[in-house]
Amino acid sequence: MQVDWLLPESVSTPALVVDHGALVANVATMASRMRERGIALRPHAKTHKSLDVAALQRAHGAAGLTVATVGEAEVFAAGGHDDLFIAYPVAAQRDKAERLVRLSGETRLSLGVDSVQGAELLVAGGLGGRISVLVEVDTGGHRTGVPPGDAGRLAEAVSDLGLEVGGIFTHGGHGYWSVDAPGGAARDEVERLAVAAESLAVRGMSAGRVSAGSTPTALGSASAPVNEERPGTYVFNDRQQLQLGAAEPAQVALAVAATVVSTAVAGQMVIDAGSKSLGSDRPPWLEGFGIIPELGGAVVTSMSECHGIVAIGDRTPPAVGTMLRVVPNHVCPVVNLFDEIVLVDGGRLVDRWPVSARGHLS
Amino acid sequence: MQVDWLLPESVSTPALVVDHGALVANVATMASRMRERGIALRPHAKTHKSLDVAALQRAHGAAGLTVATVGEAEVFAAGGHDDLFIAYPVAAQRDKAERLVRLSGETRLSLGVDSVQGAELLVAGGLGGRISVLVEVDTGGHRTGVPPGDAGRLAEAVSDLGLEVGGIFTHGGHGYWSVDAPGGAARDEVERLAVAAESLAVRGMSAGRVSAGSTPTALGSASAPVNEERPGTYVFNDRQQLQLGAAEPAQVALAVAATVVSTAVAGQMVIDAGSKSLGSDRPPWLEGFGIIPELGGAVVTSMSECHGIVAIGDRTPPAVGTMLRVVPNHVCPVVNLFDEIVLVDGGRLVDRWPVSARGHLS
Repeated sequence: MQVDWLLPESVSTPALVVDHGALVANVATMASRMRERGIALRPHAKTHKSLDVAALQRAHGAAGLTVATVGEAEVFAAGGHDDLFIAYPVAAQRDKAERLVRLSGETRLSLGVDSVQGAELLVAGGLGGRISVLVEVDTGGHRTGVPPGDAGRLAEAVSDLGLEVGGIFTHGGHGYWSVDAPGGAARDEVERLAVAAESLAVRGMSAGRVSAGSTPTALGSASAPVNEERPGTYVFNDRQQLQLGAAEPAQVALAVAATVVSTAVAGQMVIDAGSKSLGSDRPPWLEGFGIIPELGGAVVTSMSECHGIVAIGDRTPPAVGTMLRVVPNHVCPVVNLFDEIVLVDGGRLVDRWPVSARGHLS
Repeated sequence: MQVDWLLPESVSTPALVVDHGALVANVATMASRMRERGIALRPHAKTHKSLDVAALQRAHGAAGLTVATVGEAEVFAAGGHDDLFIAYPVAAQRDKAERLVRLSGETRLSLGVDSVQGAELLVAGGLGGRISVLVEVDTGGHRTGVPPGDAGRLAEAVSDLGLEVGGIFTHGGHGYWSVDAPGGAARDEVERLAVAAESLAVRGMSAGRVSAGSTPTALGSASAPVNEERPGTYVFNDRQQLQLGAAEPAQVALAVAATVVSTAVAGQMVIDAGSKSLGSDRPPWLEGFGIIPELGGAVVTSMSECHGIVAIGDRTPPAVGTMLRVVPNHVCPVVNLFDEIVLVDGGRLVDRWPVSARGHLS
């Protein structure tokens, strides 16, 4: 694998480094692919948590943003985003109901729901008439969502409680289960959302927004009845997306800049990026926690919090102080570990963007 | 397992909740055990990253603090801590050398070193005469540090470069390799630091500080030549420490408060704490990513960023909206994901403490 951009000498490691050209190309490409297919693009902002990246996405025609938490919605609403979907079955109690009421006065707000209990909490929280809800459908990822055939029944119950049903949505998370999984997961999203839409239709309800998405399934599921896609990772990409065939090496726009700090133990070198900067996510089909393009794709084999260990066998280790880049396994939790994105262009540091919604977990 | 403290209703999930009584007891117990043994306690602040917890440790007689990064040192120095040890082979280049020079004017500063190259960077950065360095010794963890017998040679070389050698240190990280590992790792720390100290002595150098430490090995290695211990996790403890026998259930002072958000998929429930609040750390000898005391120790079997999936078989799931606590596998990266610690006492929220050094990775 190859990442064709350089690191400026002025970066202090570990740092989150993004290549501006690759980022813009990723945003533009996904936007144009969705436009060609007549699909609304509502990118998931949990990946970048950045008002700057979100502004780029809107400038390229994104219909709105997807977020995962009430806290993220608050940050993006405060940043001027007027159409937010919390693609999550929020349990709207304690201060969350109040915060959602406030948010609904600031932005067009839609929310996931996958149970009558969850809908009742929304109603008890005073959200009737203020938001629309999308019924979550389990299309094979088996995380949240009702079986496709049950969507109509839940939609009706939710509507009877006084909530506006704005559509149905799914996340084909099983596209991450193996390197061959994305194709089948994308088909499942389309076919099972069709079943779900039909279960609304027989009750005289229109599905409205039919929303699917993840970076590896976005292109494969971008066809009727789906009319909205919510990929997130595509803006930066990562080692996982490369392996899944969802990104080419030139589309990897982000790396963690690290420095070699120790070569004292034979057969390995240690960099200053560990689990507190690379995260510990590792699907069973990946070895280690990131790869280093400068070292021919050498793998970060193990980590502690501020140490990444790279097995190098009997090769001569780089000198202590050598700076290099690590492409992490999964970029979303990595971005959430940093306060800023260091933006580079051709080896020049061009800007620093805050990760505005870092944290904001609740 | 059992955690005997309650969650206040006013907590918004996911949240980092710490029981004040258990925390104070943990801090006091470790302090008195080290005092009894005549060992200086220099707790590792990477676990809590909190000025409030650090103040508690100093009030109980800690000799100083240990940190992992220059950024953490800056936060604790600004908070008035006057004796900081960065137990890390910092590559002092670019702005890091300047920051270290500045820090050395604000606090007594010591630093790890495990290579001549690393020492040369310190000297080139103008740190000679401003800091003392401790030579890192690999006592079996095979992460960083020179072999015990090589410590004297490195100490001499470092001293010849004009740096003050303040001692030797190790981290018996192999105490985490299996549930039976702590005893052997503690013995290794003592025996191999003795070899290292001897390799300095034959060169006419005194070892000075002989520093060991980790929570599972702290008691076992608290004997001559060791004169300083650096445990971190003991303030909060976690699932890993319970399994290693380094903590009793009553000593678990921290949990991630979470809410049941979905029971739509049969055989499981989903909580709003995923990898962005529980971290993804998992030693090979632990199943899953955390346990839920309220549910008889049920395990978080898989996660995505904002979802924790708990297999419950054919048990009736709790209602959506039910709040419960998760004891995470490894507390250090978890604390680093939150901006504040919610302090509770007998089910009452008594304070909110900022995680002042959250991030500060470089």
